[in-house]
Formats: sequence, C-alpha cells, structure tokens
Amino acid sequence: MFKKIAIVGVGLIGGSIGLAVKKKLLAKEVIGVARRESSRRKALKFKAVDKATLNLAEAVKDADLVIIASPVGKITGLARASLKFMKKGAILTDVGSTKKHVVRKIEKFANKKVHFIGTHPMAGSEKTGVENATSLIFDKAPLIITKTKNTDKKALARLKKFWENLGCRTFVLSPEKHDMHVSLASYLPHVVSFALSASQTKDSLKFAAVSFKDITRVSSSDPELWKDIFLSARPSVLKSIKVFSKSLKALEKAIRKKDAHAVKRFLSKAKSIRDGI
Amino acid sequence: MFKKIAIVGVGLIGGSIGLAVKKKLLAKEVIGVARRESSRRKALKFKAVDKATLNLAEAVKDADLVIIASPVGKITGLARASLKFMKKGAILTDVGSTKKHVVRKIEKFANKKVHFIGTHPMAGSEKTGVENATSLIFDKAPLIITKTKNTDKKALARLKKFWENLGCRTFVLSPEKHDMHVSLASYLPHVVSFALSASQTKDSLKFAAVSFKDITRVSSSDPELWKDIFLSARPSVLKSIKVFSKSLKALEKAIRKKDAHAVKRFLSKAKSIRDGI
Repeated sequence: MFKKIAIVGVGLIGGSIGLAVKKKLLAKEVIGVARRESSRRKALKFKAVDKATLNLAEAVKDADLVIIASPVGKITGLARASLKFMKKGAILTDVGSTKKHVVRKIEKFANKKVHFIGTHPMAGSEKTGVENATSLIFDKAPLIITKTKNTDKKALARLKKFWENLGCRTFVLSPEKHDMHVSLASYLPHVVSFALSASQTKDSLKFAAVSFKDITRVSSSDPELWKDIFLSARPSVLKSIKVFSKSLKALEKAIRKKDAHAVKRFLSKAKSIRDGI
Repeated sequence: MFKKIAIVGVGLIGGSIGLAVKKKLLAKEVIGVARRESSRRKALKFKAVDKATLNLAEAVKDADLVIIASPVGKITGLARASLKFMKKGAILTDVGSTKKHVVRKIEKFANKKVHFIGTHPMAGSEKTGVENATSLIFDKAPLIITKTKNTDKKALARLKKFWENLGCRTFVLSPEKHDMHVSLASYLPHVVSFALSASQTKDSLKFAAVSFKDITRVSSSDPELWKDIFLSARPSVLKSIKVFSKSLKALEKAIRKKDAHAVKRFLSKAKSIRDGI
C-alpha cells in the first residue's frame, strides 16, 4: 500500500503498528523514529521496524505515510516538526486518544502539500513499551478517522483502507463527535477505574476477586499518558463524568430508599445496554 | 471430610461446589435440593450432585453439612426451614454475598443443636445456572468465614479446612467487618460497573474497546441477584458509594482546574494501589 512508512514513537501502539504492517506486507519499508538511543535499539530488537533512527527529518522526508504514535501531549509538536520535511502528497496521521484538541491545533499550521488526518485506534493495554507490542491488538478494534472540512477525500479513503487491512473496524467522525462518544466509552471507564482503585483500603484489597481485578485493570495504565488524555479532552471528560455521576446518584437513591423495583429496573437497564454490545 | 453434604440451591455457585466436592472427594454423597423439577433434572444432567430432590427435609435430615446456595433474599427462610430437620452436631452454612444481615438474622432463630456459620466465597461469574458451574472458580478465590460470639470453634476449623480443600484462601472476620471490606472490593465495583453501562448511548457503544468490555462485564450479572445484595448490605453499600464519590470528585476537580500535578498524583496513587494486588 505504501512504499515507506515512518512511525514516530515506537512504544506499545507504534510498535504494534510496525509489527502489523510488516506481517501484512503493507509497506516496502517501515522506519521508526525514537527519542532515545535505548528505545531505538529496543525497536530493532523486537523487530517492530525495519530501520530505526533518532533523526526525525531523515525518517519522514521520503515517507508516503507518517504516523505520530507518541503520547498525546507530544503529538502536535512532532506533527509540526514532521510537516517541515515531508514530501508533497504524503499523508500525516496521529494515533492519539483525543482528537478535537489535537486535530484542530494541527490543522492550524498544516499546509496543503501534506494531507493531515487524525485517527484513533481503540486498542491498547495497561502495559507500555515496544516489548508488549503485538499486531493482534488491532483485530476487530474500533478505529476512528476524523474528518473535517479540510480533509482530502482520497487520502481519507487510503488511510481507511490501511487501518482496515490491519484488522480495525473503521468509523469516520468529526473530531468533536469523536471526543464526545469516546469520552463515554473510554475516558470515563478509565476515570471510574482509577477512582475505584483509589477508594480501596489495605483490608479491602485482600478480598479482590476476579471481578475487581477486571474492573481495575486499566488503572494500572501509565499515569503520565492518562493525565495527558484527561487534560487534552477535558471538556468531554468533564461532561461524561457528569453523566456518570447522575447515573450513580439515581442508583444510590434507589438503594437508600430501599426501592427494590427502582434498583432492579436500573440494573436491568444497565444489563440490557451491556448485553447489546 | 463429610459423609453427606446437602446443597440447597444448585445454581452457578451451588453447582460449582458440588462439582468441586466430587472432584476432590470431600464427601461420600452430595445431594442437591432444587425448587423446580426442571432445575432438579439439570443438576443431575450436569453431574453437579449425586442425587437431587425437591424435598428439603429429606435432603438435610441426615447431612453433616448443609450449604444454602440460594440468592441472598432467600437464605434466611431456607436456613430456618433446614434447621427444623437437621441432625445434632451438623454444620449449617450459607454462601451469600452479604453477611451482617444474613448471619445476625439466622443467629436469632438458630439453636445449639446445629452449628451455624456464614461464609462468602468471592467467586462467581456474570453467568448464572448450573450449566455454567465449574470447580475452577474456587481456585485461589478469597473466602470469608464469619465468626461471632456464638461460633463453635471446632465447627469453624472444620468448615475452614473444607473451603481450603476446595482451593480457597480463607479469612475469618466478623459479619460487620466482612460487609465493610467486601463492600469496597465487590459491591462497589458492581455498583460502578452497572452505573457505567447505564451511562452509555447508542453511539458510544460502537466504540466499546476491550477495556470497556472488561469494566462492564459484571453489569451483565443477574439484576435480581444484585438487587438483593445491594439492599441486604445497604448500609455498607451506601458507605462505599460515598467513599467512591469523594474519590471521583477529587479527580474531577483536578481535571476541571487543569491541575496536571494533582491529576498525575491521583492516577499514580490509584495505579500503585492496583499494582499492589
């Protein structure tokens, strides 16, 4: 599909993209860009990329597709730097978990020479690093491509095909709609999981059953990464916390009033929503 | 360990106990008591018990151990009925998820002839019914045995050994302490999971990734069962919701104020608690 793909940031997601691209033969060459020499060597050791460099300019200058796979807080800076060196007609994308803030900011300094389109593969793990990368995480994972009035349709179609070849189920949405829907489906569960772990005591942790472990698994995720996500998608995150708090209050009230019918109605509704996936 | 064990209620937990007892040869005979003829036949079909009957009196009258494995709302009634027929020196136990309400109520009408001791194996599934029963659910599962001033020490030691033989990690606690700790570790995660599913929209559900599915898995649990648990352990459940709400508010406030340090501190604390399990 592409002659050369450059992946900027070869961690869990970047590394997994590299492995998947190589496995599915979607590019002649995959080059990884690392910030540190140790990361550069690790990317090669785990065979996530064909080549790896610390030199961004060199890696992106003749790439047909540049994928920024850094933490959310670093995406716009890396996009700006990449755009300076990218060739005409190439596609620039990012895989950040928040889109409104990132996409709108990059579009402000993007040029017509390069097609910038934001994406968000809803795949990952509480683990980090290329050592935990695997091409399997994209299998049937939802992937959102953001579309704005500036989006080039041909480039979008090509990028869509690329992610579908990696195994993703793609959706095209505005950056604003992305943040709204993903806030409920992803940011909020993470908020809740972190808050649940933070509520525990030394005594209660002794009784952590499988259900507790499942629900709090993602609270083992990287705090730096999620701090950036929560702050970058702040308005949507706050909105979804409000929705959840209202829902929690309704259940709490039914329990407080010993209203068995209302409690059961609430739980049945939640169950039917969950069973609908 | 026992000549005859009677299991009253052969659903997911009762059935799993039957399978585990037979696998580990802990009793000469396991008899199941069902409410409906269809359940009686199912218990036999899945080989969860050696014999199955609809007649409670007949099943419990010569049993050395009677285990009430019904939904929480039915435990005290079945305990009262069983006590009428049980033989001197036998042990009566239940496996209900809430203990203060259940144990204190049964102790009011229990007699010295039979040793009543409450237990709570923290094992289960969002699935129900003997068709989903498996002896594996007890493997390393936390199990709480409740101790009160009325508890017979020899009977407690015997019951403890029994559960350890099934694979559980046992803890001895007062019914009150049980409800307090388990409320944070089990009722609260269920409350939160139900509230999270109830907060979703048709659009957000399209973007349900693995993390969302893990966190909301238990909200597929039986609403009738969890309604009973939430109402039976009402004071503890309400207290744990209060603890959680406070924790959620702290995180929300840090995000609202764009306080990156406070957000990261909160997430790091949550992660270290979770990683400590």
